[in-house]
Amino acid sequence: MAGGVLANGEIGRLIGLVSRLPGLGPRSARRIVLALLRDPKGRMVPLARAMQEAAASVRTCSRCGNLDGKDPCHICMDPSRQQDVVCVVESVADLWALERAGTYHGVYMVLGGVLSALSGVGPDDLNLRPLLTRLDEGSVREVILALSATVDGATTMHWLQERLGGYGVSITRVAQGVPVGGALEVLDDGTLAAALSARRPVV
Amino acid sequence: MAGGVLANGEIGRLIGLVSRLPGLGPRSARRIVLALLRDPKGRMVPLARAMQEAAASVRTCSRCGNLDGKDPCHICMDPSRQQDVVCVVESVADLWALERAGTYHGVYMVLGGVLSALSGVGPDDLNLRPLLTRLDEGSVREVILALSATVDGATTMHWLQERLGGYGVSITRVAQGVPVGGALEVLDDGTLAAALSARRPVV
Repeated sequence: MAGGVLANGEIGRLIGLVSRLPGLGPRSARRIVLALLRDPKGRMVPLARAMQEAAASVRTCSRCGNLDGKDPCHICMDPSRQQDVVCVVESVADLWALERAGTYHGVYMVLGGVLSALSGVGPDDLNLRPLLTRLDEGSVREVILALSATVDGATTMHWLQERLGGYGVSITRVAQGVPVGGALEVLDDGTLAAALSARRPVV
Repeated sequence: MAGGVLANGEIGRLIGLVSRLPGLGPRSARRIVLALLRDPKGRMVPLARAMQEAAASVRTCSRCGNLDGKDPCHICMDPSRQQDVVCVVESVADLWALERAGTYHGVYMVLGGVLSALSGVGPDDLNLRPLLTRLDEGSVREVILALSATVDGATTMHWLQERLGGYGVSITRVAQGVPVGGALEVLDDGTLAAALSARRPVV
């Protein structure tokens, strides 16, 4: 808040906290706080309670790095999932995205980042140990690399390929190509080239 | 959340509540909740506490309709403000906007809406009684109408002009014209016409 009437007090403090959330600013924070203030019992108190509960119960899964109310998380403990297929992702957000797609039935390994010389992220900063332990135990059949198609993502995939190569498991990576629903003419050259070189016979 | 791993549990419930806030959707809600989960003690718990406190303490000012931790609010109780100049606004959001501008030193009357045939808002739905009481007491010198320049806002201003006309106080309305910093060529015809007809001599 730019000074004035709301600089202090409960409302100003709340707007300040909300405006620092990702994607929000002072304007959207004011709008959200006003909406909450208009219905304290129906909206603000339930939201505050849900946050308190989540803060108290949600933890990082020690097996895969997922965020869940339980450790190991419910994906790692799900007997209907293939525990010998491990999909390596950068973040929990990526894990959620794959879960929403709803077609993957293995488990995950959340790295917590990708290698980045610029940001100073090295191999030791990534959460790979649980996967190596599972590979040592011989309980993994396939490792799927599902990292972003960025320079850092590609670097990390190369490093993972070398790092995991000695275990004798199948290492795959998600396909690159034309997004479903995407118009060809607006695609960038890199995606078009990747889609063309990875073409498959029409069945 | 579209089904899947987050349909239940603390995280899914929290995302659901956040995604129903104004201006947010499932995607931005997931991003916000992930940011909160990454720092429960530093971000989520303080935010939850601020909401609990605001929900417990913030109330509607019985004199002007403002939202504040006290009733009457700190604007109505501020001895340095002109208590005999009342600015009529539609909502607390508009009151905040005027306070941010920082040049108004009177008090407010928050109507809580504008007359609207479409939305079924009639004169009885607006919070005007406290202003009428003050007018009856003879403690008001000027009423400033600061409503949005929409059809409903104009209708409400006309109605207020008639309703308050008998009290013998000065009734003014905020000027319409070229916004500060606004380029003339991109302005709509209505604003240009209003700015032209309300032209003032160069001092």
